[in-house]
Amino acid sequence: MAPAFAKRMSAVKRSFIREILKVTADPSIISFAGGLPSPELFPLEDIARASADTFASRGRAALQYSTTEGYPPLREFIAGRYREKWGLDIKPEEILITTGSQQGLDLIGKIFLDPGDGLIIERPGYLGAIQAFSLFEPTFLSIPLLEDGPDLDALAAALATGPKLYYAVPNFQNPSGLSYSEEKRRAVAELLRDSSTLFVEDDPYGELRFRGRHLPPVRSFLRSRSLLLGSFSKVAAPGFRIGWVVAEKPVMDKLVTAKQAADLHTSTLTQRIMWRHLTDNDLDAHIERIRQRYGAQRDAMVAAIERHFPETVTCSKPDGGMFLWVRLPEGCSALDLFDKAVTRKVAFVPGAPFYADGGGKNTMRLNFSNADPERIEEGIKRLGECIREFLDARAA
Amino acid sequence: MAPAFAKRMSAVKRSFIREILKVTADPSIISFAGGLPSPELFPLEDIARASADTFASRGRAALQYSTTEGYPPLREFIAGRYREKWGLDIKPEEILITTGSQQGLDLIGKIFLDPGDGLIIERPGYLGAIQAFSLFEPTFLSIPLLEDGPDLDALAAALATGPKLYYAVPNFQNPSGLSYSEEKRRAVAELLRDSSTLFVEDDPYGELRFRGRHLPPVRSFLRSRSLLLGSFSKVAAPGFRIGWVVAEKPVMDKLVTAKQAADLHTSTLTQRIMWRHLTDNDLDAHIERIRQRYGAQRDAMVAAIERHFPETVTCSKPDGGMFLWVRLPEGCSALDLFDKAVTRKVAFVPGAPFYADGGGKNTMRLNFSNADPERIEEGIKRLGECIREFLDARAA
Repeated sequence: MAPAFAKRMSAVKRSFIREILKVTADPSIISFAGGLPSPELFPLEDIARASADTFASRGRAALQYSTTEGYPPLREFIAGRYREKWGLDIKPEEILITTGSQQGLDLIGKIFLDPGDGLIIERPGYLGAIQAFSLFEPTFLSIPLLEDGPDLDALAAALATGPKLYYAVPNFQNPSGLSYSEEKRRAVAELLRDSSTLFVEDDPYGELRFRGRHLPPVRSFLRSRSLLLGSFSKVAAPGFRIGWVVAEKPVMDKLVTAKQAADLHTSTLTQRIMWRHLTDNDLDAHIERIRQRYGAQRDAMVAAIERHFPETVTCSKPDGGMFLWVRLPEGCSALDLFDKAVTRKVAFVPGAPFYADGGGKNTMRLNFSNADPERIEEGIKRLGECIREFLDARAA
Repeated sequence: MAPAFAKRMSAVKRSFIREILKVTADPSIISFAGGLPSPELFPLEDIARASADTFASRGRAALQYSTTEGYPPLREFIAGRYREKWGLDIKPEEILITTGSQQGLDLIGKIFLDPGDGLIIERPGYLGAIQAFSLFEPTFLSIPLLEDGPDLDALAAALATGPKLYYAVPNFQNPSGLSYSEEKRRAVAELLRDSSTLFVEDDPYGELRFRGRHLPPVRSFLRSRSLLLGSFSKVAAPGFRIGWVVAEKPVMDKLVTAKQAADLHTSTLTQRIMWRHLTDNDLDAHIERIRQRYGAQRDAMVAAIERHFPETVTCSKPDGGMFLWVRLPEGCSALDLFDKAVTRKVAFVPGAPFYADGGGKNTMRLNFSNADPERIEEGIKRLGECIREFLDARAA
């Protein structure tokens, strides 16, 4: 008999999305379930060249162990970009390179959360964060996410209980596609200033804005007591597994200790190739191509929904990112709809797993980054038919 | 004021070795302190070609997200090698690719250890494991490591307390260079069979044997209730950060859940390049080159120690791996010696941090993988002079 698993393991579920993705591996299914960037947009030739140059010029160093904090020029690049885009004064020493920003969540949970500690999360919230934090057995405090950001009364009430962390994705959130308005960003910063809570701002999608103007990170109104997470997964390629955490000295020291115990350091090779790629190519021009493409796909999906979904079904209309959020009439189960949709060769992710405290059974997430407008039209049409039949059967 | 750190953070210290490596960054210092494989032995051209081929043939897939378990052909390669070398029947599904084998330790700690759970560790023991496990607040049960493996009476007594895990590095252990004899492997397996403890067998150095015959993993006498960790860091290159854990189904399920929360998956790019490299090149021929080189360096170090160290100082004479263990006369502090040695431009790692329960102050670790015989001779000569002066000053 094997020994018993640790108590923390009963708190975390295997990702429901993973299980769904297995169902949708069938290529005849039009899947809006994934969360994958479009591989056609990966700058493959640029990266292949950056890789060849890395081997040619600094090959042995790229294959050796390296520091836990990360490759210094890559940290400088990231700091420079924050300065250039937002005038944020972030020092390279305040940036820890992580194995994807998912690892940032694990490390933050590890260094801060004792069992029972309060953690504010959006409702719906990012599933990867719910999973990572669950392992450290916090008490989740869910606050509703409205069209323009969190419900401030709910946030104030949650902050009043003295939670350790407040985790948020203010730009084009996964799963909802919603963003915090500038007013809400300021208001959130104001509320946080009077609290002892640390703000964990996760920003994988911020650069992928295809409408409106870019909004500054909440951190720019806050400075202290804030951690900022970023990633190259959506603007370059996710297969590298390179993200980062911005933190000030005392927190950085603990993060480095935890990172060292977790995997010593992120791959030297991928960090150096990524740096070379970013240095030798025009990242902004590449991001512009992604924006154009995702923007067109988002427009196609919103238009198709308006054409094919019943009026009682509503959806978010994101200004960026990769996801859109659909709400069925109250009492309709997206999980039941999922089973029906799969038989009609179309798939999505039911929303319930994104609610840390239950609920959301009538919601679902649609991904628009990884299908062209024709496929989106056809998939949404099929899904609309399913929804109509589903609602009719329910009414009958 | 930032919120308080989690309780677990007070249990873990930042690696002392890291701090030492900063001191020894000075190139005029002959350092036996590191634990780096020799970069001259990295198969740079082979890997560069494997990388170019990966981009040319499967570039977009190599840049995309991938499964948490790891790249299936790489898992098949590893399973095939266990079969070929040891006749072990390990299925690819029983292999989880990790971000270095260090991550395997983190995941194992995470899924098994509740605070206070017993964990058997060798004395001295691998520091990376002490760090990784410390975060889950176990009670360390240290058992003495003798010339031929653990003290069996101490092991039996520790097992009788019902610990969850027994962590061991049976081949050319870091830090001691010692290995378990075949008799001890069988005896350990026998003791484990009657216990409820899970054996965690970490084997990064097993292939680097330059004397005697290869010994089967303890797992081959044990089968169930055993986890086996491996790594490509010492036989290919550590900059990839690719290791693995072998585990049976129920444990694998939990490891996958924890891995997903920790970093989603190990870099798709590095896994595919590594697979291509292993498939297109002769790993055994490459390992033979490493063995020849490290063997010659080990011989040079042992001979230099016999020439230059006082007779009251003893050392291990490893048959493989990268490290050798030195014991000063009782009461001599290797930490004090370190300060003296650095002024004489030679460095090593004091042994105390490798003792989870304290002690070992008169021990030190010497690395022989990363210096040629001439540098070894010069460094050991300097160190011998330091030791003599140090012992003389003490006697005076």
